[in-house]
Amino acid sequence: MIEVSGKKLKQYIEELEQLEERRVHIAEEMKEVLSDAKGEGFDITIIKKVLQIRRMKPEKFSEQEALLQTYIDALSTD
Amino acid sequence: MIEVSGKKLKQYIEELEQLEERRVHIAEEMKEVLSDAKGEGFDITIIKKVLQIRRMKPEKFSEQEALLQTYIDALSTD
Amino acid sequence: MIEVSGKKLKQYIEELEQLEERRVHIAEEMKEVLSDAKGEGFDITIIKKVLQIRRMKPEKFSEQEALLQTYIDALSTD
Amino acid sequence: MIEVSGKKLKQYIEELEQLEERRVHIAEEMKEVLSDAKGEGFDITIIKKVLQIRRMKPEKFSEQEALLQTYIDALSTD
Repeated sequence: MIEVSGKKLKQYIEELEQLEERRVHIAEEMKEVLSDAKGEGFDITIIKKVLQIRRMKPEKFSEQEALLQTYIDALSTD
Repeated sequence: MIEVSGKKLKQYIEELEQLEERRVHIAEEMKEVLSDAKGEGFDITIIKKVLQIRRMKPEKFSEQEALLQTYIDALSTD
Repeated sequence: MIEVSGKKLKQYIEELEQLEERRVHIAEEMKEVLSDAKGEGFDITIIKKVLQIRRMKPEKFSEQEALLQTYIDALSTD
Repeated sequence: MIEVSGKKLKQYIEELEQLEERRVHIAEEMKEVLSDAKGEGFDITIIKKVLQIRRMKPEKFSEQEALLQTYIDALSTD
């Protein structure tokens, strides 16, 4: 038989619910910022690409771009 | 400098594109079946739960249900 | 030609990066709580099910459980 | 009270299970092709980028790349 401490379980559950609430709130804030940016004429797809690039190290990004070009060239010359 | 065999790359790319095409086709077929079932009055959420349960071994499912009940009881008696 | 206000764009990008940082931080905190709970012997899969049930209205949950049982019975008696 | 046709439900469930089986099979085949490509020295991340680009219309891709450059320039000159 399994015995479970309701007190401890409750504590974990409530901590997770508070974190989830904050997570949902942040997701809503992000949507709002993106919606504002769109309202100002910015392209959301491109903004997400910019964010993705800024998360990478510049040399990593250059390396990836160079390799991508190599692959595209290899495909077209075959 | 990186040398890339365009021939081999093309082969991989085309294999992946054919698989992706089949994957998209299956996803569309699944949507259609679910849409038909909904049209017949079935609840899609519950159908998905049934599929999930059928993927599990019966004893695993019973075990999970029992533990879930234990947790729910522990939370309410605390 | 497209003119873009770098100032506004920067503002949006930086807001999104700050939100993303907070989002990642919360995701890490959630992982830690789940890891602690696991360390105390709790089953993470079941904890997630408990959270899912608590997010639903009780009558909605009872309704879903009843319908699930109806479907399982219908499948077995056919 | 809800009456459910077990026969119809079974038919939908089995159709979905067959489609799911095929979907899983295709996902495994894709993994294998990617693993083979990696074994031959290809970069999986870049192969996925190539696939993504090939799915887009060329003029759409050029447009996105140009706008991305515009955004990056706007951020750096601000």
